[in-house]
Amino acid sequence: MGRERAGRFLVEGAQAVREALAYGRVHEVFATEAALDRHADLLADAPVYPVTDEAAAALSETVTPQGLVAVCDLLDVPLAEALGPRPRLVAVCAGIADPGNAGTVIRVADAAGADAVVLAGDTVDPHNGKAVRASTGSVFHLPLARERDALAAVGECRAAGLTLLAADGRGELDLHDPAAAAVLGGPVAWIFGGEAHGVPAAIAALADHRVRVPIHGRAESLNLATAAAICLYASVAARR
Amino acid sequence: MGRERAGRFLVEGAQAVREALAYGRVHEVFATEAALDRHADLLADAPVYPVTDEAAAALSETVTPQGLVAVCDLLDVPLAEALGPRPRLVAVCAGIADPGNAGTVIRVADAAGADAVVLAGDTVDPHNGKAVRASTGSVFHLPLARERDALAAVGECRAAGLTLLAADGRGELDLHDPAAAAVLGGPVAWIFGGEAHGVPAAIAALADHRVRVPIHGRAESLNLATAAAICLYASVAARR
Repeated sequence: MGRERAGRFLVEGAQAVREALAYGRVHEVFATEAALDRHADLLADAPVYPVTDEAAAALSETVTPQGLVAVCDLLDVPLAEALGPRPRLVAVCAGIADPGNAGTVIRVADAAGADAVVLAGDTVDPHNGKAVRASTGSVFHLPLARERDALAAVGECRAAGLTLLAADGRGELDLHDPAAAAVLGGPVAWIFGGEAHGVPAAIAALADHRVRVPIHGRAESLNLATAAAICLYASVAARR
Repeated sequence: MGRERAGRFLVEGAQAVREALAYGRVHEVFATEAALDRHADLLADAPVYPVTDEAAAALSETVTPQGLVAVCDLLDVPLAEALGPRPRLVAVCAGIADPGNAGTVIRVADAAGADAVVLAGDTVDPHNGKAVRASTGSVFHLPLARERDALAAVGECRAAGLTLLAADGRGELDLHDPAAAAVLGGPVAWIFGGEAHGVPAAIAALADHRVRVPIHGRAESLNLATAAAICLYASVAARR
């Protein structure tokens, strides 16, 4: 797609296009006649170019194209800008390869009221179509930053006053330990690792705490998205 | 597959077969020569029948079969048996059609130490291959009950002493409201609805509380699995 070179990416479907028009920078929307009819309200003030069904399908990544594709500016901003002067809650993806998981973490971070999501190391591009769809529009709702150097990324988080919490199934701090409550409610960056190997060892070692979600049954672990949801919402709960 | 008539179902792959051998009732394991070599320890005491790669692939539902398929007894038990005399935490799936979501809810319920999972109404069969895989073995770890009549299912949960909590994005009780803490830590049945329409209205109306996970950002909602994880772990946290 040449998305890096062009500085643009494509967004598909009514929900994502609605969020892009509300919160993103949209250059143009390609819509079929049917989509124009169906989404007249949504597209009333949008820069729309009518296209054939064939053209819309060719632009689409999905099996069942909705006939609606927006060309948008890339979303990521410099890390310092994403963090802002006094961040309270940040999610750091450290090597999340699966776009569905990355998009779901962005959605949960948005719901939890996070200030930003940092896509660090080998994490998938948040402009990936599957990541955008899994986020259900949340990629447009909060600042996203990309930083290839994951150690540098968490270093910047710490410099911004955030306590670094690595989500780690074998971490030394139980999420529900009373000692954790004080930490969780303060300014924190939660660091989530890849599906297979978790948070990279060098990043986990650098964190202030390695926090485990307690397992009370026979399950070996939680999946990434559910663990991230539990961790981020534990911080939300601890602030009350 | 004739799974209902036969009273058996098939389980694929090393992880699921290991859990089946440890916790389920396995009639036989079909394994390729390669799988027999690779998983010699796992299969040492198992009733193994060697099969060709072609036969293993034919039995498999996946694109990349692992050459290991176990024939197991069905897992579900009567609801009263699943609940036991004094249940503390139960997850009720009320119309979850997606097998991946159902399997993930079972995995989270297992991790949270739930006593049982009830698959009610139009919920997918937990023996579905995708549900088994998404559960990463948890279908074998805790009692599962199926009940077509969802109202009857939640009625039985109430009769077993459980407070009924319907997870509902527009619920009147905020999960993090101090008033919720006392309820969450007691014996509860969390009720989770389908992806599109949530908990059916008749079930939600019957619940003691309709509980919403608070949304602090611009996200419209959480997905089913992440919402279930946050709710179930809120009950775990409230018990401490």
